Amino acid sequence: MAEFIGTADSAPTGQRGPADHERRAQILKAADEHFRHYGYSKTSVAALGRAIGVSAAYIYRFFDSKQAIGEAIVAHVLSEMDAGLLEIAEGPERATARLRRLLATMMQCSCDRFLKDRKVHEIVTVAMENNWCATVDHQAAVENAIRRVIVDGRKSGEFEKKSPVDEICSAIVAASMCFSHPRLLESEPAEELDRRLNIVTSLVLRSLAV
Amino acid sequence: MAEFIGTADSAPTGQRGPADHERRAQILKAADEHFRHYGYSKTSVAALGRAIGVSAAYIYRFFDSKQAIGEAIVAHVLSEMDAGLLEIAEGPERATARLRRLLATMMQCSCDRFLKDRKVHEIVTVAMENNWCATVDHQAAVENAIRRVIVDGRKSGEFEKKSPVDEICSAIVAASMCFSHPRLLESEPAEELDRRLNIVTSLVLRSLAV
Repeated sequence: MAEFIGTADSAPTGQRGPADHERRAQILKAADEHFRHYGYSKTSVAALGRAIGVSAAYIYRFFDSKQAIGEAIVAHVLSEMDAGLLEIAEGPERATARLRRLLATMMQCSCDRFLKDRKVHEIVTVAMENNWCATVDHQAAVENAIRRVIVDGRKSGEFEKKSPVDEICSAIVAASMCFSHPRLLESEPAEELDRRLNIVTSLVLRSLAV
Repeated sequence: MAEFIGTADSAPTGQRGPADHERRAQILKAADEHFRHYGYSKTSVAALGRAIGVSAAYIYRFFDSKQAIGEAIVAHVLSEMDAGLLEIAEGPERATARLRRLLATMMQCSCDRFLKDRKVHEIVTVAMENNWCATVDHQAAVENAIRRVIVDGRKSGEFEKKSPVDEICSAIVAASMCFSHPRLLESEPAEELDRRLNIVTSLVLRSLAV
């Protein structure tokens, strides 16, 4: 879990104390394990302290609250997802192909992260419903990846140029919720999600047609 | 609650015995009250029997199970919604205006039914997650209302004619989930739902452009 060292670069809410302190990584590692195993709501700061042999008060030297620890974990999970999306958005394919891949990857990442690992799903749901910074940043990162592809597709003449880019990107994110929002994934079979991905992707591409 | 008499016309799953029996309406009235007040999961068939002075066994002469009673209640709530949507779909306006109204009404109905009345929301959520007949019928009714408008808009030259109508209708329903699915309404503020309605409606209309 060495990836957690240096998360202070992106400075998630509620973190304090020395950024590169080994203890910070240790706390986050323990939190990651506890949240995956017992769930966010059932994990206390005292339990995290016991796991690494320090007091809750000591942990509060690094994080304002349990939520601040949760934010760091969620930020980490989501930023991995965001990096993957940006890589696709910056790829060499034509914009149409990249947009298809981007939407398919949004669905795939959501299924991988939230369905296979139900406890991670719990904390991300808490984060989304309470508008934690990490999920707001994630929304922005997803829209940003889509924007990159839309702008390229306008330059290459693949997409229409009349509608406002920001609105287009937000609308694509909204329309994609039916196959990527954690709340909806819970109760839908994989084939139904695939079906939605395919028909909504086609609808989005028609909406972008020149 | 006289509307419940005669629901046997549409023959919801699990109903049996004489269709027009006064007792059937009485059971449904009690169920409607109990589900709204205590919630579906906390209501037993025995409690419904006590409310109208009969045994649970007597109720089972009319309904296979508690779920069958729940199905009848959900069918009733959703069929009212469906009737409103069909009325809009068959209205005199241009297809573009009708489609706008249809999507706005889908959001409004969902908010009215599911947010203002949390216990109704509970039973509809149970119904959706278990694919009760009533929700499958409702999906079909919503797609049908949209199909009506799409077909009219093709005839009038407002909408493109190349893409398969069935796929278009399913895709519009899927894209609309971000502002109408009960699971998503729970945690979103009204302004966010309005924003999604507006940008997704514009995206859908662009996708239909000639």
